[in-house]
Amino acid sequence: MKFWDSILGRYLADSESESQQIGVLAGIPLLGLDALSSSAYGIEAAMTVLMVVGSTSLGYVIPIGGIIIALLITVFISYRQTIEAYPSGGGSYTVAKENLGEFSGLLAAAALMLDYLLTVAVGIAAGVGALISALPILQAHTLSLCLIILFMITLINLRGIKESSTAFMIPTYLFIVSLVSVLSYGVLKSLLAHGSPIPNEPLPALATAAVQTPITTWLLLRAFASGCTAMTGVEAVSNGVKSFRPPVVDNARRTLSIIIFVLIIMLAAIAYLSVAYKISVTDPSLAGYESVVSQIVRAIVGKGVIYFITIGATIVVLALSANTAFADFPRLCQIVATDNFLPHIFAERGRRLVFSFGILTLSILAAILLIGFGGVTDRLIPLYAIGAFLAFTLSQSGMVIHWKKIGAKAHFGKLAVNSIGALATAGTLIVVLVSKFTEGGWISVTVVPLLLFFFYSVHRHYQEVTREIVTSEPLSLLHTEEPIVIVPFRNWSKPTRKALGHAMQLSSEVYAVHVFNSDYPDQKLESDWKNYVLDPIENSTAKMTIPKLIKLANPYRKLFGSLLAFIDEIERQSPHRRIAIVIPQLSVRRWYHYLLHNQRAVLLNAVLLIRRDPKILVVSVPWFLDT
Amino acid sequence: MKFWDSILGRYLADSESESQQIGVLAGIPLLGLDALSSSAYGIEAAMTVLMVVGSTSLGYVIPIGGIIIALLITVFISYRQTIEAYPSGGGSYTVAKENLGEFSGLLAAAALMLDYLLTVAVGIAAGVGALISALPILQAHTLSLCLIILFMITLINLRGIKESSTAFMIPTYLFIVSLVSVLSYGVLKSLLAHGSPIPNEPLPALATAAVQTPITTWLLLRAFASGCTAMTGVEAVSNGVKSFRPPVVDNARRTLSIIIFVLIIMLAAIAYLSVAYKISVTDPSLAGYESVVSQIVRAIVGKGVIYFITIGATIVVLALSANTAFADFPRLCQIVATDNFLPHIFAERGRRLVFSFGILTLSILAAILLIGFGGVTDRLIPLYAIGAFLAFTLSQSGMVIHWKKIGAKAHFGKLAVNSIGALATAGTLIVVLVSKFTEGGWISVTVVPLLLFFFYSVHRHYQEVTREIVTSEPLSLLHTEEPIVIVPFRNWSKPTRKALGHAMQLSSEVYAVHVFNSDYPDQKLESDWKNYVLDPIENSTAKMTIPKLIKLANPYRKLFGSLLAFIDEIERQSPHRRIAIVIPQLSVRRWYHYLLHNQRAVLLNAVLLIRRDPKILVVSVPWFLDT
Repeated sequence: MKFWDSILGRYLADSESESQQIGVLAGIPLLGLDALSSSAYGIEAAMTVLMVVGSTSLGYVIPIGGIIIALLITVFISYRQTIEAYPSGGGSYTVAKENLGEFSGLLAAAALMLDYLLTVAVGIAAGVGALISALPILQAHTLSLCLIILFMITLINLRGIKESSTAFMIPTYLFIVSLVSVLSYGVLKSLLAHGSPIPNEPLPALATAAVQTPITTWLLLRAFASGCTAMTGVEAVSNGVKSFRPPVVDNARRTLSIIIFVLIIMLAAIAYLSVAYKISVTDPSLAGYESVVSQIVRAIVGKGVIYFITIGATIVVLALSANTAFADFPRLCQIVATDNFLPHIFAERGRRLVFSFGILTLSILAAILLIGFGGVTDRLIPLYAIGAFLAFTLSQSGMVIHWKKIGAKAHFGKLAVNSIGALATAGTLIVVLVSKFTEGGWISVTVVPLLLFFFYSVHRHYQEVTREIVTSEPLSLLHTEEPIVIVPFRNWSKPTRKALGHAMQLSSEVYAVHVFNSDYPDQKLESDWKNYVLDPIENSTAKMTIPKLIKLANPYRKLFGSLLAFIDEIERQSPHRRIAIVIPQLSVRRWYHYLLHNQRAVLLNAVLLIRRDPKILVVSVPWFLDT
Repeated sequence: MKFWDSILGRYLADSESESQQIGVLAGIPLLGLDALSSSAYGIEAAMTVLMVVGSTSLGYVIPIGGIIIALLITVFISYRQTIEAYPSGGGSYTVAKENLGEFSGLLAAAALMLDYLLTVAVGIAAGVGALISALPILQAHTLSLCLIILFMITLINLRGIKESSTAFMIPTYLFIVSLVSVLSYGVLKSLLAHGSPIPNEPLPALATAAVQTPITTWLLLRAFASGCTAMTGVEAVSNGVKSFRPPVVDNARRTLSIIIFVLIIMLAAIAYLSVAYKISVTDPSLAGYESVVSQIVRAIVGKGVIYFITIGATIVVLALSANTAFADFPRLCQIVATDNFLPHIFAERGRRLVFSFGILTLSILAAILLIGFGGVTDRLIPLYAIGAFLAFTLSQSGMVIHWKKIGAKAHFGKLAVNSIGALATAGTLIVVLVSKFTEGGWISVTVVPLLLFFFYSVHRHYQEVTREIVTSEPLSLLHTEEPIVIVPFRNWSKPTRKALGHAMQLSSEVYAVHVFNSDYPDQKLESDWKNYVLDPIENSTAKMTIPKLIKLANPYRKLFGSLLAFIDEIERQSPHRRIAIVIPQLSVRRWYHYLLHNQRAVLLNAVLLIRRDPKILVVSVPWFLDT
């Protein structure tokens, strides 16, 4: 297995899990990429909605940005409290389940799973989209690029948490340093120019809408809802607390604080500079599209080396924002699977101590989405924030109950913060849901219940199985009567000889069953039986019962019809005896050789299983061919 | 199984095979469709080659037609003799193998198999092509039509020989009666008009080639080679002798005689009338294409009811000519499989006593060809006659040796006929091969050796297996020492309880192996073991050895690593003991429930088989879940 060792790294022992824990520095790329990358499109999403009112739209950018930042701060404080209260991993699922009940927990889990899936597909597609608007020559390879990036992220994640956080450190910090520096320089320039800086390069003219639509509350709410995509990924740290090395809570909180701090700075600066430079939103579906961040950076530093570094890092971070989902989705699936709501295989740690099955599931689902949408996932963006805000709301509400439980008075401040958080996110959820329902929000409303149905079906199955197999009955020492043994065979051969030998050891009541079709030389069978079985037993000094040769006609050439009828007959005669079917089985060296043998043994085994007869057990006696 | 009964008919018993035998009347549609349908394109194929020499080409049609008919008569007499000499089915394979040796037999078999496959694909495609030239609206559905017809023919053949010959009786006789009548009427009209009849309707003008090519021997040979496609299918009756009811030889010979007689009349009449009516060949790839037969029938009776009946029947017969291949291919495969040169499954009779696997193989290969060529198999036609003539030649040569063996003097006449037949078909084979090599003949030259390689590989495998498993050693009564039994288990449950009970009956040396990962509450396992296993044994009056509980750590979470290492250890300690692995196996009701269980039992079984350890046997103890 040298091959897999070099691709995925050597197997890690359970005891090495500490070596996979991370600190703040690695935590930011691992759990912050999703949140940080949203600075690149959050403000632009809001501005795009406002475009229809023409040049006056710029006046609303700062207020809307302000509200989003205020909401972000509320959510941030709430999650800091959550991390403290649930140091062993306070994902929305856990918090909601423990405080609001199982259903709410599963609702949060379903919403988050959908959200993570969309994060992967939309994040990669957005990164590739940005790359293509910079290098249009790659247009024809959109889908291939998406899938290559997805494959790369999947592979790195299968190599373990440590590797994925380390691998993405450089682009993350390059992005933070370059963008924050450029934006700060821009804010400084703007302040020095009394709020009206002159762009380094000409920018696209402000679009004047053909028909100027008047501003309405509904339009402002829709702009706000779109801007809220900037907030996805904020819950990632609270879900991933277990990844940190001790002091766990301190490390997690510090990571969250840095992520949110940087995000707020970026959002505020972008909102301010959009107005200062009178940035106009261009239409992504038209030629000449340029993102708001690109326009701002170009206005500040011109299209030079710094521009290319900053925008390059932004593109890379967008494409890698999927990584946060890869860090959290498998962990969420594991918790849900441990509670028996998902197949147990989601709870198995792979070679690098990560939940490989969850990683692969996420990767395959995202690949299906990307292929289905041809690598252009614009139409998925509306669905994006719904899952996140549903999870936010449930998690905040859960925290409210949590504080109430452990003493509302003693924790009044915390209760208040979480209450405000719950109300704010619930309100936002309603706005996002209503404003985006027809644009695709209905898909979330459909998929989440389906996921819930799946969870409960899995749970019911596991419960029923447990109920059926759990026992406190001790080992039964009664059934000491030996089984009746049946050995199906075609002719005297080494496999037959071996199987019959085993059969006679199992029991003194052995039936060797030969099913014949018209072609078989029956004479030979009788004489073989006499020469190879009856005579040696007769001549032996040991006393042993003689196996019986049964010949069954099979006039209709049905594969096992006659044999099964014989088994039925035996069962009728001895209803309390167990029956062991000893099957001689040819095992060949190469898989394609199986095509040359009719695999009666395998089929018979399957047929016997399908009959579901608890008194039957199957003993396969393999004969290994050397050829 | 009511469903399959109504689709394929009820199971037929071996004893009912007589009811599936046919007479002359049913033999003609079953074994004659391929030969008869070639009258529709044989002469045209020769005329198409001659087209380049312009209007003078008509002068060569009758001589070439005459040579083809003479060859046909030679082959016919040869095959009559073959049927008589091999009343139990004298296919080219049998005749060549018995007289020229195994290799020649297999060469004939490979050539014929390829020929049958092409007959199916080309026949169906030709029928559909003719239908589309009549109803161009169906153009877009070419491939679907081909596949539907293929599916229908396959289904009817799976229902048994009787059904397929009966089903195709009406179109076959309608075709024979209508076309022979129309052609006879045409010949009469032409004779009355002193060889220059006036067409009932205007015919396409004789094409005058832009550059008139002079006639050459090479061109005439090529025309002859193309015309020889009219002879494929002649061997069908001799392969299918076993289908007839007694008197077998008489029935088969009578069937062959009628088929060849009708074919000769049609070919002769078409050749004569093409010249009489000055028929010109049109290009099938151009609009306005009309087949020679259609032109002749139209010239004789006009485009009325009779025309549509005659041409309609011709189209149907073309599409159904595939049926002959379906009658013979599976039978040929069965004979070859019985000689161990093909997988034995080809020799198994299905529910209706036909060799279903051969039918399905032919159908699937033909479907692949049709799909690969989009239902337009023009490019396959050049390959068509090579296989047939190779088989003819080998079969005729075999007959020559046959007569020599049983007395050349007594059978001088027969020997002479077969010698002439062998020489004539060998000569034709060379002409066809050379003239069509670049057009696709090389494919036959490549595929046939590959098939031969496959035959010999299969044969070698079966021989080696037989050598390995055949034994005249009697039953061994020595190995009476009981096996060591290993029961892998996760926790105390009903399946574990059942498996352990079985294990303790197999042997007094039982190891219950628990592979643990860090999550399992080990405490519980120990106490369960004490309560449910040790205590009852201790309190029991019966004397029995106590199974040992083995706990194995699995720090790297490899599925069976620790267990397999333990088995190795046991084998090292007791190298002469056999080891039985008793696996508790959950069996669920619905297949998708298997996704919820990690299938360790099935995987372990597979892993143990792959280890190829002859001392190990696997006992699966199923536990049937009710849910």
